[in-house]
Amino acid sequence: MSFVYNADPERGREWQRLFELRAPEIAFRVWPDIGSEEEVRYLGTWAPIEDLARFPNLEVVFSLGAGVDQFDLGSIPSHVPLVRMQEPGIVATMQEYVAMAVLALHRNLVDYIAQQRSATWQALRVRPAAQCRVGILGLGQLGAAVAQHLTGLGFACQGWSRTRRQLQDVACFAGDDELPRFLSTSQVLVCLMPLTAETRGILNATLFEQLPRGASLINVGRGPHLVAADLLAALDSGQLSAAVLDVFDPEPPPVDHPLWHHPRVLITPHIASMTQPESAIERVLDNIARHREGREMVGVVDRQRGY
Amino acid sequence: MSFVYNADPERGREWQRLFELRAPEIAFRVWPDIGSEEEVRYLGTWAPIEDLARFPNLEVVFSLGAGVDQFDLGSIPSHVPLVRMQEPGIVATMQEYVAMAVLALHRNLVDYIAQQRSATWQALRVRPAAQCRVGILGLGQLGAAVAQHLTGLGFACQGWSRTRRQLQDVACFAGDDELPRFLSTSQVLVCLMPLTAETRGILNATLFEQLPRGASLINVGRGPHLVAADLLAALDSGQLSAAVLDVFDPEPPPVDHPLWHHPRVLITPHIASMTQPESAIERVLDNIARHREGREMVGVVDRQRGY
Repeated sequence: MSFVYNADPERGREWQRLFELRAPEIAFRVWPDIGSEEEVRYLGTWAPIEDLARFPNLEVVFSLGAGVDQFDLGSIPSHVPLVRMQEPGIVATMQEYVAMAVLALHRNLVDYIAQQRSATWQALRVRPAAQCRVGILGLGQLGAAVAQHLTGLGFACQGWSRTRRQLQDVACFAGDDELPRFLSTSQVLVCLMPLTAETRGILNATLFEQLPRGASLINVGRGPHLVAADLLAALDSGQLSAAVLDVFDPEPPPVDHPLWHHPRVLITPHIASMTQPESAIERVLDNIARHREGREMVGVVDRQRGY
Repeated sequence: MSFVYNADPERGREWQRLFELRAPEIAFRVWPDIGSEEEVRYLGTWAPIEDLARFPNLEVVFSLGAGVDQFDLGSIPSHVPLVRMQEPGIVATMQEYVAMAVLALHRNLVDYIAQQRSATWQALRVRPAAQCRVGILGLGQLGAAVAQHLTGLGFACQGWSRTRRQLQDVACFAGDDELPRFLSTSQVLVCLMPLTAETRGILNATLFEQLPRGASLINVGRGPHLVAADLLAALDSGQLSAAVLDVFDPEPPPVDHPLWHHPRVLITPHIASMTQPESAIERVLDNIARHREGREMVGVVDRQRGY
């Protein structure tokens, strides 16, 4: 019985050390050294793996990231559940990153980075955080946790989701009807939606026009949520004042992508949220135990819905 | 009876509007339109004012900033108390700024800004905030509030002050004897001390050598705390990995100052903490009432100690 890990090999060695301490009865193997294909019961992977049929005893595929849009759901045998990674490390690192990005936008860091390049010393006015309204697109596990965290930092928070959520101290909007009112009052917009056919390209000119003039954007969802040409146009017209982008389509973006060099854009290489081995392994082992005992696992993907 | 405001005139108009609503019995005047010198009872100023003797009925000088190092304490008549600005807006904006700076250092933003310039997409490892130890030099009103705030964000916090403080969940070091142990365990060092003869130049090569290799620095104290040449040497040797500087000596720094152009330095123009008119006026009016009634004002400067 083995667990095959298929992602960054350096992190794989850290997983191996922790996994073997906690579950010595399961052989831990780091791709491509997978051992006997018949032994493979569990697969932990960030990227899709071709030809899963060669693992006749495969029981569960664990995504090592929060999203599963990278997988072709039809290629995973229907009797093998696909489980999203839901672990406190992913949530905590996302909360940190969005807090950093919102604070940077609120405190004019994009302006000051540009000023520094020309050795310019010009103070800009600081407003109280409570006067800065942050809108979270997507109130799933991550969006809800981010909204609560920003509220704790003093920001005025609101969120939008397809079906209505209830969150303390966060104004919750829902459905297509309420989207315009949500957008028109979001000075900082944070995209934390799953990538589906419905949300692909949602960050486009039509949406940007509904934000208050001078609003800013943080994309920590997926690259294909964003229409890059529309963002460039909105930044250049002043409709948007700045953007912090952690995801791209494709990744990495080509070196001549104009967003790399735009003075109102901060780019990070898909690091907003990162699975933390200790807490992730705990969650994987808990799900393995649930699966063996016939109980429901946490985070099983609904293939119809896509997340 | 008048209150004379001597700082940025645009903010002065905002003060005037709020002040006149709250205390219509006191004439509010924005420098240089001070009216009759004999009418001046209260002076609110950021910069020192020469020849205070021309205001024969002056009762209190209010500093509009948290520090008073810009004043020549000997030039203020001894019967006129000098009061530091202690108001929640200053504290909240400082907490925000330091949170932004610590998160930016913790999440490698300085590296990613440099990567963006060369269109490089290279993820760096994320560690849990609890494994990042932040040391606060100075545990006065601001230092203590910042330490508590960072603890709330999950960072491991410790602080150092001349006389011992006690703060929940913050390891408190005190005095010269404990400074080396404090420094040797501070991966991010935040300077929040008052500027005095004792602290001038404290951020120097000797101090940097005592930090863990690769530590980073946030200076939100005063420019003269830092020996700029020593910081440059420490950054270039790798002893320090990055610095976020909000204060300089002089301000603004000359355009050819090498720190402007160092790739491991982020510079902001003395905006970390900003007095917020609403809460500042409330505190000033409370102190005026205390003074009239013969009660002790909050934030009176001890001229011996210098803060």
